[in-house]
Amino acid sequence: MISALLAERMAYIKASKIRELLKITERPEVISFAGGLPAPELFPIQALADLTSRLILDEGYKALQYSTTEGYRPLREKIAMRMEKVFKTRVAADEIIITSGSQQALDFIGKVLINPEDEVFLESPSYLGAINAFRAYEPKFVEVETDDEGMIPEALEAALKQAKHPKFIYIIPDFQNPTGRTWSLERRKALIGLASKYGVLVVEDNPYGELRYEGEILPAVKSLDTEGWVVYLGSFSKTLCPGMRIGWIAAHRTLLEKFVLIKQGADLHTSTFSQMLINRYIETQDFDAHIRKLCQVYRLRRDAIIRAMERYFPGGVRCNHPKGGLFTWVMLPEGMDGTELLKEALSKNVAFVPGASFFPCTPKKNTLRLNFSNMPEDRIEQGIMRLADAIVSLQ
Amino acid sequence: MISALLAERMAYIKASKIRELLKITERPEVISFAGGLPAPELFPIQALADLTSRLILDEGYKALQYSTTEGYRPLREKIAMRMEKVFKTRVAADEIIITSGSQQALDFIGKVLINPEDEVFLESPSYLGAINAFRAYEPKFVEVETDDEGMIPEALEAALKQAKHPKFIYIIPDFQNPTGRTWSLERRKALIGLASKYGVLVVEDNPYGELRYEGEILPAVKSLDTEGWVVYLGSFSKTLCPGMRIGWIAAHRTLLEKFVLIKQGADLHTSTFSQMLINRYIETQDFDAHIRKLCQVYRLRRDAIIRAMERYFPGGVRCNHPKGGLFTWVMLPEGMDGTELLKEALSKNVAFVPGASFFPCTPKKNTLRLNFSNMPEDRIEQGIMRLADAIVSLQ
Repeated sequence: MISALLAERMAYIKASKIRELLKITERPEVISFAGGLPAPELFPIQALADLTSRLILDEGYKALQYSTTEGYRPLREKIAMRMEKVFKTRVAADEIIITSGSQQALDFIGKVLINPEDEVFLESPSYLGAINAFRAYEPKFVEVETDDEGMIPEALEAALKQAKHPKFIYIIPDFQNPTGRTWSLERRKALIGLASKYGVLVVEDNPYGELRYEGEILPAVKSLDTEGWVVYLGSFSKTLCPGMRIGWIAAHRTLLEKFVLIKQGADLHTSTFSQMLINRYIETQDFDAHIRKLCQVYRLRRDAIIRAMERYFPGGVRCNHPKGGLFTWVMLPEGMDGTELLKEALSKNVAFVPGASFFPCTPKKNTLRLNFSNMPEDRIEQGIMRLADAIVSLQ
Repeated sequence: MISALLAERMAYIKASKIRELLKITERPEVISFAGGLPAPELFPIQALADLTSRLILDEGYKALQYSTTEGYRPLREKIAMRMEKVFKTRVAADEIIITSGSQQALDFIGKVLINPEDEVFLESPSYLGAINAFRAYEPKFVEVETDDEGMIPEALEAALKQAKHPKFIYIIPDFQNPTGRTWSLERRKALIGLASKYGVLVVEDNPYGELRYEGEILPAVKSLDTEGWVVYLGSFSKTLCPGMRIGWIAAHRTLLEKFVLIKQGADLHTSTFSQMLINRYIETQDFDAHIRKLCQVYRLRRDAIIRAMERYFPGGVRCNHPKGGLFTWVMLPEGMDGTELLKEALSKNVAFVPGASFFPCTPKKNTLRLNFSNMPEDRIEQGIMRLADAIVSLQ
């Protein structure tokens, strides 16, 4: 009776069977490459503990009260400066709104932009959390062929030409979730050219960009945008801690105004306390040194997973070599099914996310995503050995 | 060019002109009855400061990490117990999801339930934040005639009979925003009867229920519901502090599952840290004593505003006597316009919210909402004197 009262959009929003399967990864004997968790032992706990009580004592009235929808101004200014320093953007604090994690930014993008049947262009594969957030607004997803340097411009242009109501191109150009791939500078430039030519927006989701373990950080797509086509999403979840839920959107003022209206209706504003705490952290601590430390630890873990995969996986299994971020991507031989493999793997106490769910249109079943940021090297090696066993026993 | 890319629903979501007018209330010489802020001097700052740093030191890995979408289990258990103790409900922890303030709950209700043109029934007038949150999902609002005891059952039944796609009845039965009115027990029972008879949901929004300054707390509508029709919204914003953004939904499991799916896409979960902090506060402090203190202070302020209105307002102005909460409601003589009065009032350095915007269909222009929780009695008296002057000079 009650379920007859649900809105029609709920038909598109379903519980994930994979998520159900993965519930057993909470057992300590399971080595899980499935999540996307940062390493908790790297959270700057002592610094945050010292700052929190001082913050409440110094500014309790403000830190605990309602605050503005746009977000805490000093934090927005620091974000604008950091984006410029690291990713070469030129964004004013006024062009930034603080969100409750960048997942909220994804939902707002759907709400502000998507009419049913509008085309949303995605890398193939793309981030599941974005796909799910957009799906509630009933777009038509268009997967664009993507190689190790990003979307293939000719494929993107062909897709744009065919589209009836092209709305935006969603990309994660740095250390993509799920593949770990990074777009080349040339592809970034080509993308901006196409966005401008076809009058569509680019949504640049960049939660991992600062976590680079080799090579130079590339300029953000947003930094190449002189006309306001790029909506940029950032987050402190991977660089500081996720539990505070602080992300942001940087966008053209026309759009930013709309995000502010939507946020008013969605949750009024993000936790004042969390915003002020992160602001204080950046103000008083050496954030660059913290990022260097994260990169050091994660680099070793990335090296460990690559080494183990090369050593233990049978021939015919290909894996990606990510230059940063939290994930790597595995292609099994044609005909193998990641979901079947997961069942086998779980029986051997190792877990991962099958790749199929990252393709909204045409799943490649012989793929999987592995996270390497959340456990030490010896556990990574042991997990990959188990996974190799599972692959072999399925062949 | 960019604005051509907006989703159609954005046509329903507009910046409020009143909000623009009220920006000047930030000037210290303005006495503002416009907001809905709790008194910051009553935040338990020392207790929260002591608890925060301990929390991070004891449980930093958990407090700063990603957590479950449903929310922190010990907090959900405490909420279930408190609801039972205070409002006589019988809700299990499993039937509760933590939201980022109850504003987020309102947005989720729209998303999970409303198809375009579905009828949503509201008290006349009703809470603006709810109207705005629902509006994004394009319902048809139906204002139901309401007196000092709540919606008039005959009027509600007539409206339900006429409706094409009746979806839910949204009410604030305790110390309503904007009027301060409280539903009688009889009306609560009649409401449940009608919901069941017509197969529509009731959304019971109860942020103020614990803040009662006279009489006995009435059982929540949820407590009278044996069939699962009531979706209950709660919040710590008025009883503890708003800056942490912690609210909740208690609902039938069929609906709760859907709220969990929507929250996954909307922001993954609410700040782990904020949830654990409030949990610890309830665990270690005397929350009842804190509520008693709030009631003591707010009762004096309510008494002050009523006394001042009776003393200074000219004849023909009627005002409500709220038994709790943060607001009172004023009816000006027919023909007077609250928005015109606001302009006059601002020139005399006093502010309020004109009542018209709380009526989604047929605005009564001769009304206004006054908040009394956010300033001491002498300032309240001075503000009401200024407002009385403004009324007189407009007559």
